[in-house]
Amino acid sequence: MAKGKTFIISGPSGVGKSTVLRELFKDRDDLYFSVSATTREPREGEQDGVSYHFINVERFQEMIEADAFLEYAEYVGNFYGTPKKYVDRAMNEGKDVILDIEVQGALQVCTKRPETIRIFIAPPSWDELERRLKSRGTDSDEKIQKRLVRAKAELQTADVYDYFVINDSVDRAVREINAIMLAEHCKPAERMKILKE
Amino acid sequence: MAKGKTFIISGPSGVGKSTVLRELFKDRDDLYFSVSATTREPREGEQDGVSYHFINVERFQEMIEADAFLEYAEYVGNFYGTPKKYVDRAMNEGKDVILDIEVQGALQVCTKRPETIRIFIAPPSWDELERRLKSRGTDSDEKIQKRLVRAKAELQTADVYDYFVINDSVDRAVREINAIMLAEHCKPAERMKILKE
Repeated sequence: MAKGKTFIISGPSGVGKSTVLRELFKDRDDLYFSVSATTREPREGEQDGVSYHFINVERFQEMIEADAFLEYAEYVGNFYGTPKKYVDRAMNEGKDVILDIEVQGALQVCTKRPETIRIFIAPPSWDELERRLKSRGTDSDEKIQKRLVRAKAELQTADVYDYFVINDSVDRAVREINAIMLAEHCKPAERMKILKE
Repeated sequence: MAKGKTFIISGPSGVGKSTVLRELFKDRDDLYFSVSATTREPREGEQDGVSYHFINVERFQEMIEADAFLEYAEYVGNFYGTPKKYVDRAMNEGKDVILDIEVQGALQVCTKRPETIRIFIAPPSWDELERRLKSRGTDSDEKIQKRLVRAKAELQTADVYDYFVINDSVDRAVREINAIMLAEHCKPAERMKILKE
């Protein structure tokens, strides 16, 4: 059995990443969605080990010292990190792993594991991203403008990504991500082993 | 409209490349199969411009001097080459181009155009390749053994390929080639243009 691979999926707020990921995971038990560890309090309805692995700051600190994270970051006073353990277990079971993380986290993972494949989900245009952020109706105009500036800034550092998936339709985005995952399994390193015997 | 890309598809004799290519081209008018030029005489039923572009040795020589080939080679006294003209025209029309050429030709193309994507179709195992060659019933045992040695030698230089497609079933091979083509269109160089405006 071939080992699984790890795929980072990043994308700006409002691009529709959650919908794409939900579609991607339909009927796919050969795919593992990496659950982050966090020091923040569970919200109502959140299950430990499903939404997040809820741990305290001391444990988080221990894990940093044990190099047990692929990446970690602070966000409004709480810590978030990707534990290596579950990612490695899934890959050893032959499953591909999806990491839903930001550009900064992607850079950290790729320093530790350059073989990780990085996919950036981009909007068809900036106008469309603005339209989507407005239609969610959750943010003020000022917040939307901030999100747009942040998205453009992210894209300036997005050269680190291996692939760009344009989310102009969910079906197309999912088809492209699936194609990327399959194509990556056709890379020589893995396949040559079979025939160089 | 995005420009097309060129994909080289190579593979040892008996691997089933023709069947895979026939399946791949079904209902795909967005795909162009590169027709070679040759100095050999047309055989019965062969159409100029369809099977080959039939040209004489003088013309072939002129084309070499004009750097009009992506690659060329001699094979049992005749010359074969891939004219740049039709490949470029198809790519400019937004079509992806398939070049069905050998490892040596692939090396020539990639010296001229490193951006060309190289796919090697491999058998699931050497035993299976031998079985397929025998089941064709066209070659003597000695010729089959020669083909096997040649296939193994080719694979030693096959590190130049970007992808390995294992032809254990035609459907799977076609699905993998389609995934590779789609994934290659998700590479940043092409996609970033849209968003860096």
